[in-house]
Amino acid sequence: MSHSYDRVALIGLGLIASSMFWAMKRAGLAGEVTGYARSQETRDTAREIGLCDVVYDTAAEAVAGADLVVLCVPVGAMDSAAREIAPALKQGATVSDVGSVKRAVINAVAPHLPDGVHFVPAHPLAGTEHSGPRSGFAELFDERWCLIVPVEGSDETAIATLERFWQKLGSKTDRMAPDHHDRVLAVTSHAPHLIAYTMVGVADDLSRVTDSEVINYSAAGFRDFTRIAASDPTMWRDVFLNNKDATLEILGRFTEELFALQRAIRKGDGDLLHDYFTRTRAIRRDIIDAGQDTDAPNFGRSKT
Amino acid sequence: MSHSYDRVALIGLGLIASSMFWAMKRAGLAGEVTGYARSQETRDTAREIGLCDVVYDTAAEAVAGADLVVLCVPVGAMDSAAREIAPALKQGATVSDVGSVKRAVINAVAPHLPDGVHFVPAHPLAGTEHSGPRSGFAELFDERWCLIVPVEGSDETAIATLERFWQKLGSKTDRMAPDHHDRVLAVTSHAPHLIAYTMVGVADDLSRVTDSEVINYSAAGFRDFTRIAASDPTMWRDVFLNNKDATLEILGRFTEELFALQRAIRKGDGDLLHDYFTRTRAIRRDIIDAGQDTDAPNFGRSKT
Repeated sequence: MSHSYDRVALIGLGLIASSMFWAMKRAGLAGEVTGYARSQETRDTAREIGLCDVVYDTAAEAVAGADLVVLCVPVGAMDSAAREIAPALKQGATVSDVGSVKRAVINAVAPHLPDGVHFVPAHPLAGTEHSGPRSGFAELFDERWCLIVPVEGSDETAIATLERFWQKLGSKTDRMAPDHHDRVLAVTSHAPHLIAYTMVGVADDLSRVTDSEVINYSAAGFRDFTRIAASDPTMWRDVFLNNKDATLEILGRFTEELFALQRAIRKGDGDLLHDYFTRTRAIRRDIIDAGQDTDAPNFGRSKT
Repeated sequence: MSHSYDRVALIGLGLIASSMFWAMKRAGLAGEVTGYARSQETRDTAREIGLCDVVYDTAAEAVAGADLVVLCVPVGAMDSAAREIAPALKQGATVSDVGSVKRAVINAVAPHLPDGVHFVPAHPLAGTEHSGPRSGFAELFDERWCLIVPVEGSDETAIATLERFWQKLGSKTDRMAPDHHDRVLAVTSHAPHLIAYTMVGVADDLSRVTDSEVINYSAAGFRDFTRIAASDPTMWRDVFLNNKDATLEILGRFTEELFALQRAIRKGDGDLLHDYFTRTRAIRRDIIDAGQDTDAPNFGRSKT
């Protein structure tokens, strides 16, 4: 198979970067993959487990000569990462990222990039509750969407090459404008995460319901919330701070709707509740039909 | 293996009852299992798939001679189910149920039961997003908790026999007082379900974010909410109407906390967010350690 890029540099070596590395190796996709992480501990771990062909101690060394540079750092660290790599980028290279927010990343990264370097932001919609260099695996992106979010003036060849790269990592790809991306993700990911974090925090606060009871009897519902609320704190802090307006707007609508349902409970309006729950049930079927989840018994989880 | 009960009657033939039937057969647990469902269609389906040894057209016929009668109907239908079976119950029989709310079920059922019949409410903490007689499977209760909620005057032998019965169905059992049960479940199940229903409803309302985008790009977060929000509408309507006070109290605390986090986002208070998310992450680890979920990659889901 011909390589999409002869040399790929991964800046930041957490769940996404490590999964990209293993998926590239699985597909025989890049000639050489270099890596850099800000923390010495992460670089040591990467070297120990063979994550990246070479791990460098500076971002500039890692990106030197790279045809594709992927910024895999939290959204709040994009600006400084872009500053570090900018002087070392090869002419004609493509810079991309994997951030969950796109407008803020574009504002942070684009101003630092030299002429003659292509910038094609992207966002793979894949993750687990785990983080760090040991958490990656080659199958993470299989059948998941990767949204390609070109900026004004993005080179069509650079865009198309990055699309094929993500497809070879296992993803389906689609293109989306930055602001639209941020609104869609506020609904499908950012607001749900904040809500899950909140509910788990509330449960933790309740002294009347002891810790062990909440944990033992977590059942469906709360258990699913805890899985979401176990996601990386730094990543999610940065998401909320950088997609503030869209997230707050969705949370406002959520609160309005929650109050309406609370009122129905208080008043005993069973018809309203039943109609509402029937409508939301139908959406689930659409998601399964779209191949974005399984309806296996026990939610497809293995028994533990 | 000696039978816990020679004859078991299942009133209502949905997910829980059908799973109980297959789990009883797997364990060789009952001499004969009879069944009844209010809808002719459900009775026909049960007969077609061999759910129950005999399916009767009336609840009174199904419970005649039964040593254990389990009410597996929505919480709002418990009162009428108890009225129907009461005159036909055998002296010394145990009546139990599987309702997600306990105080309301006790108030609905207990007054109708004749002297000489034992009443031992129970609540298996197990379920899927599917409902109806075809949705059951023998493994549903394996390693899950079943809470036994004795009422004042419940016979100790009747309680212990029901506990052993649920253990043979695969469950771990624990005893809990009715009001405490309702508070714990408001936190771990009822409030999270209402929140998930709400978020999915909000997404469905947004015209700016088209249906297909919400569905295709559901990612983690929203996707998990849709699974919860696909639960049976009738069952959940009844849960909220019958555990009103505890659910509304938890939702009040949830809203208070959500507002505090929204304020932190608006003010850009990253430290508050990071601390909060770090705290909730720790709870997840406790739940996995308690054996109530798996931390398998991709949330243990098979790829679809």
